[in-house]
Amino acid sequence: MLRHIRESGPKSRARIAADTGLNKATVSSLVAELVERGLLREGSADSSRALGRPGQLVELDGSGVCGVGAEINVDYLAVTALDLSGEPVLERRVPVDVAHLDPGATLDRLTELIREAIAAVDARNGQLAGVTLAVPGLVQDEGTLSLAPNLGWGPVAVADEMRARLDDPAYPLLIDNEANLAALAAYSELRQDGPVQDLVLLTGAVGVGGGMVSNGHLLRGGRGYSGEVGHMPVAPPGRTCGCGRTGCWETVVGLSALLHQATDVDDPVRDPSLDVEQRLAGITQRAEAGDARTLAALGDVGAWLGIGGAILVNILNPDVLVLGGYFAALGPWLKEPLEIAIRDRVIAPDGGGCRVVRSELGFAAAVRGGAQIALDQVFVDPTVIGRADQGVAQ
Amino acid sequence: MLRHIRESGPKSRARIAADTGLNKATVSSLVAELVERGLLREGSADSSRALGRPGQLVELDGSGVCGVGAEINVDYLAVTALDLSGEPVLERRVPVDVAHLDPGATLDRLTELIREAIAAVDARNGQLAGVTLAVPGLVQDEGTLSLAPNLGWGPVAVADEMRARLDDPAYPLLIDNEANLAALAAYSELRQDGPVQDLVLLTGAVGVGGGMVSNGHLLRGGRGYSGEVGHMPVAPPGRTCGCGRTGCWETVVGLSALLHQATDVDDPVRDPSLDVEQRLAGITQRAEAGDARTLAALGDVGAWLGIGGAILVNILNPDVLVLGGYFAALGPWLKEPLEIAIRDRVIAPDGGGCRVVRSELGFAAAVRGGAQIALDQVFVDPTVIGRADQGVAQ
Repeated sequence: MLRHIRESGPKSRARIAADTGLNKATVSSLVAELVERGLLREGSADSSRALGRPGQLVELDGSGVCGVGAEINVDYLAVTALDLSGEPVLERRVPVDVAHLDPGATLDRLTELIREAIAAVDARNGQLAGVTLAVPGLVQDEGTLSLAPNLGWGPVAVADEMRARLDDPAYPLLIDNEANLAALAAYSELRQDGPVQDLVLLTGAVGVGGGMVSNGHLLRGGRGYSGEVGHMPVAPPGRTCGCGRTGCWETVVGLSALLHQATDVDDPVRDPSLDVEQRLAGITQRAEAGDARTLAALGDVGAWLGIGGAILVNILNPDVLVLGGYFAALGPWLKEPLEIAIRDRVIAPDGGGCRVVRSELGFAAAVRGGAQIALDQVFVDPTVIGRADQGVAQ
Repeated sequence: MLRHIRESGPKSRARIAADTGLNKATVSSLVAELVERGLLREGSADSSRALGRPGQLVELDGSGVCGVGAEINVDYLAVTALDLSGEPVLERRVPVDVAHLDPGATLDRLTELIREAIAAVDARNGQLAGVTLAVPGLVQDEGTLSLAPNLGWGPVAVADEMRARLDDPAYPLLIDNEANLAALAAYSELRQDGPVQDLVLLTGAVGVGGGMVSNGHLLRGGRGYSGEVGHMPVAPPGRTCGCGRTGCWETVVGLSALLHQATDVDDPVRDPSLDVEQRLAGITQRAEAGDARTLAALGDVGAWLGIGGAILVNILNPDVLVLGGYFAALGPWLKEPLEIAIRDRVIAPDGGGCRVVRSELGFAAAVRGGAQIALDQVFVDPTVIGRADQGVAQ
């Protein structure tokens, strides 16, 4: 019933009964239950009824229920809290040189950020649906980060570690790959503008991941290790990848590859204590000013982006290839070579109809996707949210 | 009900009623209907009942209902008829140099083969569930072969052309990409040995296609153009691909690439008037005899197979990578370099658990998959099969 209202908007109780096949007494009782839990509220009078007593519309009450998404990446930690209608309650990203911090200290910092987000939810008397943690690596058995090449971490039982730090919370705490979560966020984002069933999202950071949605479903692969596009062996042996190999795609398209080519070692743009968007603004300024070294580096990265992009489009034939992270920020210089490669190198006519789109979410995609997944659980099982008199479910 | 018996074996009417929630009178009436259509038959007495009158088991009657799969490939045409239990009624493959024949003449030859298969079904008083045609190229709107680089064909309205040649048949006539159909056949094949949800099948022929099953479903992409792995730009510019580009994967792993390196122009192994398996037997003999040129060519192809294979496994994380077509036939020399590449080049631990398997179906995979799809329709809607007194549904 909750999903029905989410998808098709405010409705009278009589209309809900007719649409769902439930009887009116059941609908009234369910509505009362969901209003108590802060998921529905009474809306305006039903003006669609020409005859009889006007019914009251019932609508989604998003404000009281929030999901939290948090992210560990190579050079930042981030958190966001979204309410049920998708409005941000809090968004924070802090530059952290995670590669030079041990896992325990990193998870401590992340815990502080998550507590900040939960405090923001509490401050509006909201209820917490759950927390999802995005990590830049392989997630095993829904809880262990088994490999994160660019963090230099071995296996870390992230779910257990975080549960301990958050005092064994009652709300669901999920761990997922950041590209998967970013792809889900991009999927929601794009569907607001029209039908999309198949997409590939590229997370442009120090590492490069791929999140793939096919026919509306996330592709996870046999063991959940799909989308490791950054390690496709397509580049010439040259710089060593975070995974220890050479020839990986991310050695030529990752953020480090760009910075390596475009800047000197002591360039402030490389400083991991500065926020990544601020650093990218520095690159943008130079590119706009026509700086030859910057433009050459962007040209090279764009060409390599085209090679890997054409591979992905030949294999998956997505409706949309979404540029995330730094690819989105520097899209004005990277999108065109990618579009040319798709037109030229993809066998399907017109590149199989694939559009290249810059995500509006930038580096916030993964945390948004994480918060959305936490909220999705409310629609699957509204009882995860307690009644108003029971306080916040923590 | 039919699907239930297919999946869980012979059952009494009482058991079917209990399992499906239908009442016994309905089950008896449906069973009678399906027996009349030759889809079910009375089996042995139900020995599982300790008490009361023993019920008669009802089982799948495969013999009377057949599906036909046909295939156009670069150097052969093929057809197969399977009965409902998956047993072959007829299998034929004829060497045809399709690239040097025009589409009309090719479809004429194929029509003869399909008529032969239908005659074999008729000869056993069977009923035809449908015909599926596998093509080595991009299929648009479920009926037009929009591009088949290695045939040198432009767009051909294959479905319309074949319907006209087969006198506008009443049975369903479907067109699909050969790699998709081969992947479905491999999926059925592998599931007999254990659970498999995600696989990638490589069709090794002059062209190289990929059929992908994810979480039990065929991945088709936004416009149905997925799996064009042969045109991934991973090879150095060298031989020109059938698509007119250079650098495509199939220029280094396709059958022509192997023959080009391993044989002289006038070598009978290159003769398209000989059956492809006979030609491959020639290669096998030389490899087994330790012929240096043959082994060097197989080594090169194997190494390149590993590059593209590692890309596919990094992206899709399949449970199984299935070698089809000539890759299966020459598997003893190609499988090992592929396994090494997956172990070494795939980021997930143990290559994400991906096994490399040679398909037992060889070049028959696509026609098998085609026949299976035709038969699948019977389980979706048994009324596509006429009653015995109405004769064959043509």
